[in-house]
Amino acid sequence: MSLVIVGSVALDSVKTPFGEVENALGGSANYAAMASKNFCETKIVGVVGADYPAEHIELLKHNGINIDGLEVVEGKTFRWRGVYNDFNRVETLDTQLNVFEDFNPILPEDYRDCNYLLLGNIHPSLQLSVLEQMPNVKVSACDTMNFWIERNRDELLEVIKRVTILLINEEEIKMLTGERNIFKAADIAAEMGPELIVVKRGEYGALAVHKDYHFFTPVYPVRDVIDPTGAGDSFAGGFMGYIAGKQSFEEDIVKKAMVHATVMASFNVEAFSLERLKDANMANIAYRKEEVRHSVWFK
Amino acid sequence: MSLVIVGSVALDSVKTPFGEVENALGGSANYAAMASKNFCETKIVGVVGADYPAEHIELLKHNGINIDGLEVVEGKTFRWRGVYNDFNRVETLDTQLNVFEDFNPILPEDYRDCNYLLLGNIHPSLQLSVLEQMPNVKVSACDTMNFWIERNRDELLEVIKRVTILLINEEEIKMLTGERNIFKAADIAAEMGPELIVVKRGEYGALAVHKDYHFFTPVYPVRDVIDPTGAGDSFAGGFMGYIAGKQSFEEDIVKKAMVHATVMASFNVEAFSLERLKDANMANIAYRKEEVRHSVWFK
Repeated sequence: MSLVIVGSVALDSVKTPFGEVENALGGSANYAAMASKNFCETKIVGVVGADYPAEHIELLKHNGINIDGLEVVEGKTFRWRGVYNDFNRVETLDTQLNVFEDFNPILPEDYRDCNYLLLGNIHPSLQLSVLEQMPNVKVSACDTMNFWIERNRDELLEVIKRVTILLINEEEIKMLTGERNIFKAADIAAEMGPELIVVKRGEYGALAVHKDYHFFTPVYPVRDVIDPTGAGDSFAGGFMGYIAGKQSFEEDIVKKAMVHATVMASFNVEAFSLERLKDANMANIAYRKEEVRHSVWFK
Repeated sequence: MSLVIVGSVALDSVKTPFGEVENALGGSANYAAMASKNFCETKIVGVVGADYPAEHIELLKHNGINIDGLEVVEGKTFRWRGVYNDFNRVETLDTQLNVFEDFNPILPEDYRDCNYLLLGNIHPSLQLSVLEQMPNVKVSACDTMNFWIERNRDELLEVIKRVTILLINEEEIKMLTGERNIFKAADIAAEMGPELIVVKRGEYGALAVHKDYHFFTPVYPVRDVIDPTGAGDSFAGGFMGYIAGKQSFEEDIVKKAMVHATVMASFNVEAFSLERLKDANMANIAYRKEEVRHSVWFK
């Protein structure tokens, strides 16, 4: 079963204590797709400019990702420049929306019947538009960020009301709900509509809260975090990819999806851009999944 | 098998967003003992002044805790006053060491043959003195704090070199090792001597790092944290109490000790002072342990 992923496609310039890259392949849709493609057929929706390197599109095709929804238009690709002084906080130095400013996602016909949807972190009105183009969606997830919570709260609440899963990081759920206790914050977010709240907690792993259960996954232990850019997106892609691949939203599948999500994020942070994520395969994913199991399982 | 616990015995005045108490039963030795007594015979070492309420001593006796090592001397008991504006940071308003200033722990004869020892957060030179009084110790753990890391580093390193387990919170291990990656920080701390490093991470649970394995425990989900004072001490007491009770430091036991430790901390934070911790019993501890299992276990 296939997963539709909508999000940004970008050229990122990133500096961390371990090095830097210029105009590297980035954007939430790319990160999520390169994670999800390990578990299910993946269809991407996004926009790039005429300056977007052909090799970046080739990488997606080579990895079996459907790019029919990737629009190429006149102008320049979305660019982002940031610096991590430590890994808990990124400073954005420059954002050039370029062609992304007028992005209006129109889904190809064969995307519209898909049952699984990941709405990456884009303007809530675009997320709504995509939701409306997929009337048969069974499990949908939206990611978001502080920017939309502050400036487009009403539209964002409309998206949250309609999705199955809210993916959100810890500071953002506290901002969204006004509650600092993470379990209470998740309860409040669930009252907004979603069946499942997934809180991404960076180096502390992630927490899923459902009315019938809650589940923690820790991180796979990465001793040299080279670049955390895209960790949340590769988590989201791994999570929704696993659910779409299993065609199930049952508790057991959600729990395994959480673990596969943290594994995909662990590959992501080991190199700049998609360099390490593209080495992930069923063997090294399974190995890390078992390592995570041993790190939480007790007799 | 019995556990010797050395630490502070205090009268705490605490204010949190949920209320306040004046001169309530507190101190690291009390919190740790009330947690460990569920799993093993517990012997306390500490000092109080003549003003210490008899009912506080009765509570320990009533709970089967050996208080032969609790010295009562002329003067006033150690007092601490603090306020939590949110639960991530406490502001100390007043510290009166009183009789604790001249504390020189002398272990009763029948404590000295014990095999298990928890050195609560006191001056490293006192921790060393206690270690030397227990030549037959098999598994020893020390807790510490930023104050000693900054001011008595050499003596603290001597303690760390000699204990089996270092119990430390996340900010403190980063301060001790100068390393921000938690796995690398644990590796560096392990090179200082201990076989096992246990990092207490507050609302994110705890992490144990051993050369052969690592283990994460999340927290039991407490939606109303009333007072976090003593959470680290009840964790430490639950952890070492479980190990002493099982007379084993094997991997399986350490992992279960971590889970029992987080369960004891969860009771602790549900009320001021020892009010909720004293309600813990084998039934409600086992219930929470199984809840923790379900929150991390996947097929």
